[in-house]
Amino acid sequence: MRAVNVGICGLGTVGSGVFNVIERNQATLAARARHAINITHIGARRDNPACNVGATKVSRDIFAVVNDPEVDIVVELIGGLQPAKELVLQAIANGKHVITANKALIAEHGNELFAAAEEQRVQVVFEAAVAGGLPIIKVLREGLSANRIEWLAGIINGTGNFILTEMRATGRAFSDVLEEAQALGYAEADPRFDVEGIDAAHKLAILASIAFGIPLQFDKVYTEGIANVAPRDVRYAEELGYRIKHLGIARRVEEGIELRVHPTLIPQQRLIANVNGVMNAVLIEADAVGPTLYYGAGAGGEATASAVIADIVDVARTIDGGPEQRVPALAFHQHALSDAHILPIEEIRTAFYLRMSVVDEPGVLSGITKVFSDAGISIEAVIQKEPKKGAATATIILLTDVVQERHFQQTLAVLQELPAITEPLTTLRVESLDG
Amino acid sequence: MRAVNVGICGLGTVGSGVFNVIERNQATLAARARHAINITHIGARRDNPACNVGATKVSRDIFAVVNDPEVDIVVELIGGLQPAKELVLQAIANGKHVITANKALIAEHGNELFAAAEEQRVQVVFEAAVAGGLPIIKVLREGLSANRIEWLAGIINGTGNFILTEMRATGRAFSDVLEEAQALGYAEADPRFDVEGIDAAHKLAILASIAFGIPLQFDKVYTEGIANVAPRDVRYAEELGYRIKHLGIARRVEEGIELRVHPTLIPQQRLIANVNGVMNAVLIEADAVGPTLYYGAGAGGEATASAVIADIVDVARTIDGGPEQRVPALAFHQHALSDAHILPIEEIRTAFYLRMSVVDEPGVLSGITKVFSDAGISIEAVIQKEPKKGAATATIILLTDVVQERHFQQTLAVLQELPAITEPLTTLRVESLDG
Repeated sequence: MRAVNVGICGLGTVGSGVFNVIERNQATLAARARHAINITHIGARRDNPACNVGATKVSRDIFAVVNDPEVDIVVELIGGLQPAKELVLQAIANGKHVITANKALIAEHGNELFAAAEEQRVQVVFEAAVAGGLPIIKVLREGLSANRIEWLAGIINGTGNFILTEMRATGRAFSDVLEEAQALGYAEADPRFDVEGIDAAHKLAILASIAFGIPLQFDKVYTEGIANVAPRDVRYAEELGYRIKHLGIARRVEEGIELRVHPTLIPQQRLIANVNGVMNAVLIEADAVGPTLYYGAGAGGEATASAVIADIVDVARTIDGGPEQRVPALAFHQHALSDAHILPIEEIRTAFYLRMSVVDEPGVLSGITKVFSDAGISIEAVIQKEPKKGAATATIILLTDVVQERHFQQTLAVLQELPAITEPLTTLRVESLDG
Repeated sequence: MRAVNVGICGLGTVGSGVFNVIERNQATLAARARHAINITHIGARRDNPACNVGATKVSRDIFAVVNDPEVDIVVELIGGLQPAKELVLQAIANGKHVITANKALIAEHGNELFAAAEEQRVQVVFEAAVAGGLPIIKVLREGLSANRIEWLAGIINGTGNFILTEMRATGRAFSDVLEEAQALGYAEADPRFDVEGIDAAHKLAILASIAFGIPLQFDKVYTEGIANVAPRDVRYAEELGYRIKHLGIARRVEEGIELRVHPTLIPQQRLIANVNGVMNAVLIEADAVGPTLYYGAGAGGEATASAVIADIVDVARTIDGGPEQRVPALAFHQHALSDAHILPIEEIRTAFYLRMSVVDEPGVLSGITKVFSDAGISIEAVIQKEPKKGAATATIILLTDVVQERHFQQTLAVLQELPAITEPLTTLRVESLDG
């Protein structure tokens, strides 16, 4: 069986992880794969001291790698949309298979890349794009292929989960913990991708596509970050038996598909509620197997390298075969993808957590509950907190039953007009995650 | 692309699950797989009312299925060692691929079956043999192929986990909860396979083999059941911050490989300590990806069918290809399997929980701790319980540091000679599972 030549574009944390793990585990890899795997060309603007590349050919121009006729598989690890997209398209045009860890590129341009790859009869694979080394793409594309996936919910951004975990453990505020996360290197200097949910939305778009057989539709993911989660909401959630997690949720409902990223109250006893720190986890509900959960490190050089190398072994295995021997890029054939309606947030049904500051006088709670009762919305739980000494306002926390977002927002507007309500209302969505 | 013809041998819970899920999810399967999958022949001693097989050919002689020239893939779901082994060997000899959910068959005769399959250039695959529908075999064989696996620990018998979960929740005794499990249908009338750990040992032998690249060695798995776990040990473990789980553990150490199934104290805060009821979970520590955990239903007709069908799709994909396009049966090439030493239990190093009944008089604890100190074994925690009113004996619970089993047993023999120790000692192993 012939050796497979791999070119790596980008020699940062993940690139050097790929190089080092392949070197360290050569014997294991040779015993597992039926093809020898050789890194024959590296494209990197500069050397990486974490990685002794020895005699491996290095080019400062990454395009030299994709234009190298000796290279069979291009590993794209430069990140970002450009020039990554151009690089991948050039590799495909040159008849090379592509492996990428680039979630933004796949989520935003995957449809175009996969079409180009299909035409050239090459593969574009991306296990490392979601949840680092956790083989969640393989699980969805292959492990659960018998199933109709009903929904999935994932903690798919480690930075956000670290911040929420620390907020709960210490009672500190978001901005305070964010600074710590930046100091620890868990959060970027510009943390918006993580804390505003964009990174999670990229990953959710990818997971949903392979779960439901729909094209990538990043632009339709409803996305809400964690900056507005207040320490007292973390505390009240706990009192109610819930924990707040930043979840990416994709769900099949009668009217179409929900795609949303937002902070979510989930019952404390769920296994996924106990996933802490920078760890990732994805809970999948499927019709035959029922609920399954997958947990692991969502980032880190070697963890991500683990996924990249698994993709290399997979691609090597069918490198001389045709498309019929390969798993479709989005799990379903290109021509079998469904144009299911993606629900705008107003059409989505969830339960809600609602926190209100109210004037501390008789009849307020009954006025509030009447608004809900008139709207036909059931209340599942109420906590009323006595005003602090000397304060004129009390706090009321409500959990509602499942209600359509539009109707809930209309009800909130009515509520906000009550004279007893003194401040803007705080709301969070609630999911039971029970199948 | 040609259609793939599947023959099913055995139409019990799993067999009818396979038939029903394929029928129900036809459209999804067709969109995922590049081959049409047709069940063309069923071998079953009797019909199953859970399954309307329509016009599908049914034979009362299961060997008619493996001898049917139209059948490409034989699914063996009859269970047990014989005639399952003969059936699978006949299928292989007839040039058919085999899919089985039979953990006993794979664990005890897998080496022979895989050798026969290699010779005939067919596949024998067995995702459903471990942890039901959870794709743990695929994860280990493919998803983590980049890694050197360091250890794995699994809750891989749902009946045992249900019993331990109930014992903890209710304080009831083993035999009492076992009866409930039998009434609920979670435990067989003859529960020995489950509660004595044989079923878990079968699965552990399989997981260890594909994790470490060693031949199947079921006979070398040290196996201890849960019948001797007492309610008070569950309670004391809890007081110490631990939970008792029946784990299958496979670990690579300098001297070789540990293979063992036994009740184990694990820290409460570990995610796997919170896996309850009949659910299964496997925690894997690997050098590149770090710890990852996989959780799902370990049994049930449709859950197990999910794994069988995923195997069908996988086999179909490379049905016209050669071995170089397939994943090796035991993850590593047959000729690359290692003859690593399997450690007998005496050589294994773990921490221990020890419960003693002692005469309630001064100096007893110091006499006990001196025995450990003389033996060079550190004590990590001690609880001394006051005697019950009117009782002459107190209870002492100790947690030791990690120590070799042989040395620990020798120390116990010394301890047992102390006049203050009134009853046989109770011991359980302790694992931190922290990498």
